[in-house]
Amino acid sequence: MTDEAGISLEELRLAARNHALPLEALRYDITPIGLHYLLTHYDVPLVDPGTYRLEVGGLVTTPLSLSLDDLRVRPAVEALVTMECAGNGRALIEPHVVSQPWLTEAIGTARWRGTPLRGLLQEAGVADGAIEVVFTGLDRGVEGGLEQEYERSLSLMDAHRPEVLLAYEMNGEPLPPQHGFPLRLIVPGWYGMTSVKWLRRISIVDRPFDGYQQTHSYRLRREEGEPGEPLSRIRPRSLMVPPGMPEFSTRARVVHAGTHFLEGRAWSGFGAIVSVDVSADGGKSWAEAELDDDVDSTWVWRHWTLTWQARPGEHELCCRARDDSGNEQPLEPAWNLGGYANNAVQRIPVTVV
Amino acid sequence: MTDEAGISLEELRLAARNHALPLEALRYDITPIGLHYLLTHYDVPLVDPGTYRLEVGGLVTTPLSLSLDDLRVRPAVEALVTMECAGNGRALIEPHVVSQPWLTEAIGTARWRGTPLRGLLQEAGVADGAIEVVFTGLDRGVEGGLEQEYERSLSLMDAHRPEVLLAYEMNGEPLPPQHGFPLRLIVPGWYGMTSVKWLRRISIVDRPFDGYQQTHSYRLRREEGEPGEPLSRIRPRSLMVPPGMPEFSTRARVVHAGTHFLEGRAWSGFGAIVSVDVSADGGKSWAEAELDDDVDSTWVWRHWTLTWQARPGEHELCCRARDDSGNEQPLEPAWNLGGYANNAVQRIPVTVV
Repeated sequence: MTDEAGISLEELRLAARNHALPLEALRYDITPIGLHYLLTHYDVPLVDPGTYRLEVGGLVTTPLSLSLDDLRVRPAVEALVTMECAGNGRALIEPHVVSQPWLTEAIGTARWRGTPLRGLLQEAGVADGAIEVVFTGLDRGVEGGLEQEYERSLSLMDAHRPEVLLAYEMNGEPLPPQHGFPLRLIVPGWYGMTSVKWLRRISIVDRPFDGYQQTHSYRLRREEGEPGEPLSRIRPRSLMVPPGMPEFSTRARVVHAGTHFLEGRAWSGFGAIVSVDVSADGGKSWAEAELDDDVDSTWVWRHWTLTWQARPGEHELCCRARDDSGNEQPLEPAWNLGGYANNAVQRIPVTVV
Repeated sequence: MTDEAGISLEELRLAARNHALPLEALRYDITPIGLHYLLTHYDVPLVDPGTYRLEVGGLVTTPLSLSLDDLRVRPAVEALVTMECAGNGRALIEPHVVSQPWLTEAIGTARWRGTPLRGLLQEAGVADGAIEVVFTGLDRGVEGGLEQEYERSLSLMDAHRPEVLLAYEMNGEPLPPQHGFPLRLIVPGWYGMTSVKWLRRISIVDRPFDGYQQTHSYRLRREEGEPGEPLSRIRPRSLMVPPGMPEFSTRARVVHAGTHFLEGRAWSGFGAIVSVDVSADGGKSWAEAELDDDVDSTWVWRHWTLTWQARPGEHELCCRARDDSGNEQPLEPAWNLGGYANNAVQRIPVTVV
């Protein structure tokens, strides 16, 4: 990590409109609207809820065309879900990867309300030969030289998982425009690219979906042209609330000597968080943080705390999460062509005075 | 404006947490929460509304200590206010100025509800000799080498203007944490640095306030050490919704040939907007946009529209606002040490295909 990286004006345009979570907002169990991370591939579309329809078609026995009211009278569930962008950590990878320049804060937790997708699929009746479900948003743009709608697919099996929702509420309110009003997919445990916003069409298909966002973007590749490994579930990560105060223009942290209450959140799409280790010396020694017991589900981040005796001088705070599938955060980033899935441990230099 | 600018990782940290308005959100009369621009000098403080007090003291006959309930039972007014950061446009100024790297979108409009400040000042009773009112937030940090709370002042006269509010609601909801919960100052027509968030104290004083944010920051200066001119009211600006579609990573616009409906917003803290001119050839020729009639007040942006016949080729769209005080946007930025108040006309390159 260096301050010599040099972000271009084009990347700054992305950083200005794609909002990160200010790290002090890790204090909230549920991220207030406006602080949850936000990535918009193209433009936020303007949708008239009165004429809006969700179309369900392709290899189904009964194609559906549903209004927002039709969706709201279906069986409803609520779920707390921690969502993270697959590109989180990209700006800390070297050599530099040009795309949305996320540091570590492309994260947020919301209470989503909606109807389970599998009920809708059952009603439409998936026909023989179907293997995937394609989700199409109302947002259009140009990427890789192609004019396209934002589209992603799930396997039939993943699409039938009970936690997969079509959500029309966020934190008890209608979806804000920027989070997919009037309807979005929510796939808990997966990176955010899967949770298609402004959903207009669900198509059941009999071949692997080969759209740009599936076969080119969101894959771990070392070289252009190789197929690469598709991204899916969120790798474990822990982030802490930076202690003390910031210096305005550098965001460097200044902490008064004494006892400090460190806190943070940890999550993984591969399973429950089983430990968070914290270091105050850049990773030379580690102490185990205390994990809160009251975890709503495996889809939501877990709160942790640790008391720290801050002594005058320069320190580097780090935290590192491990999940019950045995995944642990690496100490250093791993490079890939798209700059994806960099879950290297967070490092916060602090000056104790 | 060049793509070679080179934004440092430190500036990127600011850009990630300080959110700009995505320009397509200029379509909304009132900016949805989460899309309004946001600048946080230090950290968003966590405030317990149950124990929160606003203290009013200094040169007053009756010091006040008010709970949130005390404030909510006072006479209430609502106001639509367009707010802009004084640093908006900084990243387009050359030579480069290092601070929050705003492009042109540090803007938003909200419906604020609160109680007029002057009623509170009357109740406290301003004593003889008082000349200014100092507003102190709960946010603390280090700036210019000094540990400080965020503080700004107004002259007694400006503090008594009828439109100045102590706001506890935004768009019909309690203030979100990032917009100053539980209470903030709103000074319509002024750049946002004046509208102090997380307000904890109002002090009436008998000398010009010399805090860092008043005497060092937010002044138009050419050289360090000179006093400079304090920033106050918002200079006129117009921004348009970029037509067509974006290319993902460059945000370059691609427009299909044909008739397009251009729209945007214009505002000024110096008076009513009287005209918006639009150019499709980089400012060589201009056409006058149609201004909407239904303007709520001079404190809120004015919507404008214009039909554009897009012909294949490269074009540069511009728009330029003028207010009834005779202020007009300049065609090029004017440099100053802090990179403030750059209201040069917006320029959007578009490729028509």
